[in-house]
Amino acid sequence: MTSAAYDTNNIFAKILRGEIPSYKVYEDEHTLAFMDVMPQAPGHVLVLPKAASRNILDADPAALARTIPVVQKIANAVQEAFDADGVFVCQFNEPAAGQTVFHLHFHVIPRHEGLALKPHSGKMEDGAVLAANAEKIKAEL
Amino acid sequence: MTSAAYDTNNIFAKILRGEIPSYKVYEDEHTLAFMDVMPQAPGHVLVLPKAASRNILDADPAALARTIPVVQKIANAVQEAFDADGVFVCQFNEPAAGQTVFHLHFHVIPRHEGLALKPHSGKMEDGAVLAANAEKIKAEL
Repeated sequence: MTSAAYDTNNIFAKILRGEIPSYKVYEDEHTLAFMDVMPQAPGHVLVLPKAASRNILDADPAALARTIPVVQKIANAVQEAFDADGVFVCQFNEPAAGQTVFHLHFHVIPRHEGLALKPHSGKMEDGAVLAANAEKIKAEL
Repeated sequence: MTSAAYDTNNIFAKILRGEIPSYKVYEDEHTLAFMDVMPQAPGHVLVLPKAASRNILDADPAALARTIPVVQKIANAVQEAFDADGVFVCQFNEPAAGQTVFHLHFHVIPRHEGLALKPHSGKMEDGAVLAANAEKIKAEL
């Protein structure tokens, strides 16, 4: 497999440039975290390095090393904010693995006992719900 | 949710101490990677920090930052070794999220178009197959 090049017009690149809005929960110099608009469970957050890479395969290792502590921070925050029993972290590389947007991102998803995840790239959540969930998470950061 | 304490007798702690064998693919001062004995696809590898933590929620951020570049290295190696179309990276925190061994670990799983993953914690793979797959991956490192 040879990965395609990074497309600067992918939707997350547009969010990073502020051309498209998002429900942000966290931002620092190197990292952005915002609500997945098609959540697999309430409180589903995406964590991205600002540095351009298609996925983990072509990422700068230093960018990865800066991103994963933010993934941890968000995992703890969603666990608290949604009183979750567990947290699922996942990261898809290339379409065969489920990747649909080609800027590296980690999914952070609160889990509750006995509650199955909704499908990846399922139904668009209501904006008011996403905004309220973002506030709950920010309160734990 | 309050996490339980780290159990120094979990199976990965025993592997790290060399009390139980594993099909190793990579090791450095801080990190170990070996074959999952119940692979969800051929080439399924686990990447662990040697530092003790139950999962991502209680991990030392510095240990995480050292581990994720190794996850990347293994992702690229399994992609090459199995001529994969994609790579799935995931990490389970607490039983509600699917965690079954309570030492932090990342799953790195090659994906092929049209081929579904087997269930997590499914069937034990034959040792000779695991050993051969470990060799394939080491050849790409």
